[in-house]
Amino acid sequence: MMKPNEIERLSFQMIDGEAGVHDFPPDQWQVVRRVIHTSADFEWQGMIRLHPEAIASGVAAIRSGCAIITDTNMARVGIRQRDLTRFGGAVACYMADERVAETAAREGITRAKAAVDVALPALAGGIYVVGNAPTALLRLIEHMEAGRVRPALVVGLPVGFVNAAESKALLLGCDVPHITNVGRKGGSNVAAAVVNALIVMAGEKD
Amino acid sequence: MMKPNEIERLSFQMIDGEAGVHDFPPDQWQVVRRVIHTSADFEWQGMIRLHPEAIASGVAAIRSGCAIITDTNMARVGIRQRDLTRFGGAVACYMADERVAETAAREGITRAKAAVDVALPALAGGIYVVGNAPTALLRLIEHMEAGRVRPALVVGLPVGFVNAAESKALLLGCDVPHITNVGRKGGSNVAAAVVNALIVMAGEKD
Repeated sequence: MMKPNEIERLSFQMIDGEAGVHDFPPDQWQVVRRVIHTSADFEWQGMIRLHPEAIASGVAAIRSGCAIITDTNMARVGIRQRDLTRFGGAVACYMADERVAETAAREGITRAKAAVDVALPALAGGIYVVGNAPTALLRLIEHMEAGRVRPALVVGLPVGFVNAAESKALLLGCDVPHITNVGRKGGSNVAAAVVNALIVMAGEKD
Repeated sequence: MMKPNEIERLSFQMIDGEAGVHDFPPDQWQVVRRVIHTSADFEWQGMIRLHPEAIASGVAAIRSGCAIITDTNMARVGIRQRDLTRFGGAVACYMADERVAETAAREGITRAKAAVDVALPALAGGIYVVGNAPTALLRLIEHMEAGRVRPALVVGLPVGFVNAAESKALLLGCDVPHITNVGRKGGSNVAAAVVNALIVMAGEKD
């Protein structure tokens, strides 16, 4: 029986082989390859979009012990908290925070939106991870465009049929470092995989 | 702004429209549609495999308040625990259980395997959900074939390049009710979506 790290190494070799020739520089490929590993979906090669500063900014933020805030608990538990601890960082999801329920009720907005509002103070220089809710990403874009927050990185990978593709198209136009994709696909699993690739890179020597 | 339940209803309408003509009976379609909703991937229409007794057995087990045991914390938090509570059921993942670490160390096996062994007593008449680890599914199949356990349903959707497709091909040959797929795709998100579809059905009138 192979050990988990052997299985991962063999999987990465298979992905390298099947992916064929591509234009991703080595650091970007580490992210794309892990997304393909998590999804078994080579379409990601064609649809992922990485802002030119995304990886440098995300890795530096992780090394500085930044906050990583997710829109879902699935993304939160999918991120390797144990490997973050050495940098002093932590992952949080505010969806079950009582301030979110209060804000949502008071302002008549969804919890997904209210969770972004509550996260804002923690988010300067941090990483915001959207794996599910287009409304969370749209709210964050509103705040960024109004100059109220500038995260080190936005991982914007909501999935679905209503507003997911549209919200990601808006993120593509933002000058804040981001990793996103075109189209409907996405999800908490791939969003967590992106962050985990950056955490692995943060632990490697330059 | 649409409310979350309106977004879900509209998404389901879009999926119904784009899926076109298919052979799934209405109860199976509820599962397949939710998987497509979660993944935005219509390939699931062609690759999902539902044992003829899977839905009836899974829904009856949920109504009886059965244990739902997952191989990952991502699948655990993706399952709608709140909607299960009314039936008396609960979701558990044993990966962080200290008995699993002990069993793995004592027997020289992976934690994924040890987690299946530790779960066995709770699993008779329950639902086992694999979203990530082929080794967990292979271990469960060993126990089922040896007659040591018979779950009400196995949701076997490990993802990946090493042993995922092979483990699911073995599950397809088992006479225990199962929901699985052919090929490499899978994941904790789709595994949770399958269970959530069954939880919704369990809450509906017959």
